[in-house]
Amino acid sequence: MAYLNENYLKLQAGYLFPEIGRRVKEFCEANPEAAKRLIRCGIGDVTEPLPPAAVTAMKAAVDELSVRETFRGYGHEQGYEFLRSKIAQIDYRERGIDIADDEIFLSDGSKSDCGFILDVLGDQNRIAITDPVYPVYVDTNVMAGHTGPADETGRFAGIAYLPCRAENDFVAEPPNEPVDIVYLCFPNNPTGAVATRAQLEKWVAYAQKHKAILLYDAAYEGYISEPGIPRSIFEIPGATECAVEFRSFSKTGGFTGVRCGFTVMTKSLLAQTTDGREFPVHKLWHRRWSTKANGVSYPVQRGAEALYSQAGREQVRGLVDHYMGNARILSEAASRASLRVYGGKNAPYIWVATPPGLTSWQMFDRMLHDLNVVITPGSGFGSEGEGYFRISAFNSRANAEEVARRLETTSFS
Amino acid sequence: MAYLNENYLKLQAGYLFPEIGRRVKEFCEANPEAAKRLIRCGIGDVTEPLPPAAVTAMKAAVDELSVRETFRGYGHEQGYEFLRSKIAQIDYRERGIDIADDEIFLSDGSKSDCGFILDVLGDQNRIAITDPVYPVYVDTNVMAGHTGPADETGRFAGIAYLPCRAENDFVAEPPNEPVDIVYLCFPNNPTGAVATRAQLEKWVAYAQKHKAILLYDAAYEGYISEPGIPRSIFEIPGATECAVEFRSFSKTGGFTGVRCGFTVMTKSLLAQTTDGREFPVHKLWHRRWSTKANGVSYPVQRGAEALYSQAGREQVRGLVDHYMGNARILSEAASRASLRVYGGKNAPYIWVATPPGLTSWQMFDRMLHDLNVVITPGSGFGSEGEGYFRISAFNSRANAEEVARRLETTSFS
Repeated sequence: MAYLNENYLKLQAGYLFPEIGRRVKEFCEANPEAAKRLIRCGIGDVTEPLPPAAVTAMKAAVDELSVRETFRGYGHEQGYEFLRSKIAQIDYRERGIDIADDEIFLSDGSKSDCGFILDVLGDQNRIAITDPVYPVYVDTNVMAGHTGPADETGRFAGIAYLPCRAENDFVAEPPNEPVDIVYLCFPNNPTGAVATRAQLEKWVAYAQKHKAILLYDAAYEGYISEPGIPRSIFEIPGATECAVEFRSFSKTGGFTGVRCGFTVMTKSLLAQTTDGREFPVHKLWHRRWSTKANGVSYPVQRGAEALYSQAGREQVRGLVDHYMGNARILSEAASRASLRVYGGKNAPYIWVATPPGLTSWQMFDRMLHDLNVVITPGSGFGSEGEGYFRISAFNSRANAEEVARRLETTSFS
Repeated sequence: MAYLNENYLKLQAGYLFPEIGRRVKEFCEANPEAAKRLIRCGIGDVTEPLPPAAVTAMKAAVDELSVRETFRGYGHEQGYEFLRSKIAQIDYRERGIDIADDEIFLSDGSKSDCGFILDVLGDQNRIAITDPVYPVYVDTNVMAGHTGPADETGRFAGIAYLPCRAENDFVAEPPNEPVDIVYLCFPNNPTGAVATRAQLEKWVAYAQKHKAILLYDAAYEGYISEPGIPRSIFEIPGATECAVEFRSFSKTGGFTGVRCGFTVMTKSLLAQTTDGREFPVHKLWHRRWSTKANGVSYPVQRGAEALYSQAGREQVRGLVDHYMGNARILSEAASRASLRVYGGKNAPYIWVATPPGLTSWQMFDRMLHDLNVVITPGSGFGSEGEGYFRISAFNSRANAEEVARRLETTSFS
C-alpha cells in the first residue's frame, strides 16, 4: 500500500492564518451585527490598489498574448531576462552589490521560495530558527522530516530556537553551538525589528566560521526608513559566499494577489556532500527550477518590471508611505492605550505586549469580541511570541484611524 | 558546514529541453543562414494567440485590482471558489463523475504538481514509471532520493520501468511485482498513445489490489477525438479511491506563458503510515498548499474561468482543431517519407521511428542540420525512446506545411 509523508502528522492543527480565518468566520456567523464593523489587522495583506504602472504593463502584456506575432509561450523557468536584469541592476548593482542577472530566480512569492529552498539542501543539516517567526520556516522543515515531534509549547525537537525578546531588541545573537542553516528575517515578521549592520556582521562572521548558510528573508526591505539599516544581507562583506536572500513584490507593489517574488542565489555559495566535496548550490537551484517549475506568468513579470520604472518606483513609494502612516497611527494609539509597543518604524507590523494576565489567544478573542478587530496572536509565531500580538498596518487610512479610536477608548488594565 | 541534497548529483546532464536549447543555439550561431529557416517542432509549446475570452477576462481582472473597492489581495492558497467550482462542475460532474469543488487544487501548471505531489507521499514507496516518459516524473523522484544512481542507459536503480513499445501499442500493462505509486500519462507525452477503457480498468484493478496510487497526468485530454476513449481516470469505477489526476490549461487555452493547471485530489484517497494507520492524502495536500503556496495569480484564475464560458469553449475547440490539423499534415508527410509513424490522432505529438541505423540524437542532429527542423530525440524520454523521435504539432499552419514539404523531399533510407 502507498505510504504518506507522515512528518505532516507532526504539524500542529492548522497553519496559523487559516486557523484565524476559522475563528473569525465562527464569530461573524454568531454575531452578524458585530461582523459589520469588523476590521482585519490580522494577516499582512495589502488593501490599496495596484500601482497604475503595473496595471498598464500587465494589460499590455495580455494584449501581446492576444496576437500571433507577439504571442509568447513558455519562458525560461528561472524568469525572463528583462526582469532578472532590472532586479540585479537596480536592487543590487546600483547599491554597490555585485549580483549577476542569472543569480536572480523569479518565483510566485517568497513564501514558496522559503519552502522550495529545502529541496536543494541536505536533510542532515542542523537548523536554527528565530522565535517568534513566520511559521513557514518551521513548518516546511517539519514536513521535510528535519524534526522530531512538537513538545507541549509547540517547539519541535531537532530545531535550535533562537529567542527574540524585548531584552535583545528582538534580534537574536548567533548561537554558541554550530548549526548549518539559519533563518533570519529583517525587517522582521512578526516583531517589526530590524538588524543593524553590526548585528548582521556578527551573523556573517558566524556563517563564515561554521560554513553555515543564512537564509535571509528580506520581503519587507522596502519598509526600512532609518538610514544605515542594511536592506540586503549582501551589503555585508562576505555574505555572497554564505547567504541566500528572498524578496517579494507582495508588500511593495501590492502583489499579494498578483504573485511575484525572487530569490538571490549567488554562484559563490557552496555546500558540501556527506563525503566533504563542495559544490555551488546555484547549480542545484537552477536545476530545481528547470525541472519543477515553468516560470512566473508572463503578464505578471511585465507588471513587476513596471515597478522599476520611474513612475512605478514613485507609486511603490506612495504605497509604502501610506502603510507606514497607518503604522504610526496604530503605534501611537496602542501606546496611549497603555500597551507596550515595538516595531512599526521600519516595518508594517506593530508588536504589542498583551496586558498582564492575558495570553496571546485570549487577547485575540478580546480584540475580536470587544473591539471587533482581528489581530494575530503572538503565540502563533512560536512560544516566544506568547504574551504578544501583532497588529498589521496593511489597511485603508480610514480603517487604521477607526482601529486607533477603538484602541484608545478601551481600558486594557 | 551546510550540506546539499546530493541526490541532485545523480541527475544526468541537463534537463532534456534546456539541453535541446543549448544544441540549437550552438547550431544557429555557427549557421546564421540556416538559422533563418529554422522551424521548432521540439518542445511542446503552443504558438497561437490566447483565446479572446481569456484576454478579456484577464484584462478585466487587472482593472479590478486597480480600484480599491474591487482590489483583492491573497486568495485561498488552493484557488478561488469561482474557478474550482467551474472545473468540478463542467469537467467532472457534468460528465457523471462525482468530484467536489474542494477536491480541485489550482496551481501554476501540471509540471509543478507532478513534482509537488511527492511532498505528501512517503519516501519508502516503490515507484513505477512508464518508459519513454515525460522526464519530470523520473527526475523529481531522483531529487527526492527515491532512487540509486543511473546505469549506462540512464535508468535509475530503484524505479520499476514499464516499457511502452510498438508491440504493446505504447500502453504498459500493470507489472507483476507490487508497487505503491504508478505514473500514467494519457494521451501520452511523448508517444501520443491513448489508453482504452479496458486498459485503464486493468490499472484501477491493480491499484485496488495493491492499494497503490495512480498518478494520472491528463494534461492532453482535450486532444482526445476518438469516441469511447476515457478523458479522465475517474471515468473508471473505483478510481476516486486510488488515483490523483493532473490537468492543465497550457495546451487547451494556450496558457504555457500564462500558467494555470490543477490537481484533482479526492477525499477518498487513502495512504498509510509505517505502522499501518490510514489517512486521507487530501488533508496533507491541503496543508501543503496552505504552507508552501499563495495561490495562482488572480487575473490568471479569471482567464482560466473564461475558458469555461460558451465563447471560451468554442475558442479552445478552435485551437485544438488547429493543432490537430497540423498533426494530420505532419503524420501524413512523415508516412510519405517512409517513416513509421505513431500517435498524432488523439494527441498533438507524433512519435516516429528513426530510420535504420540512426540513434535518436543522430536523427535530432540530422533534422537540425539537413532540414533545419528541431524535433525531440526519443531517448531523451527514457531508454525505450531510443530509436524514436517526437514531432510536436504545436505550430502555425504555415510552419507545419513547410515541415511537411521538407520531410517529403528528403530521403531517409
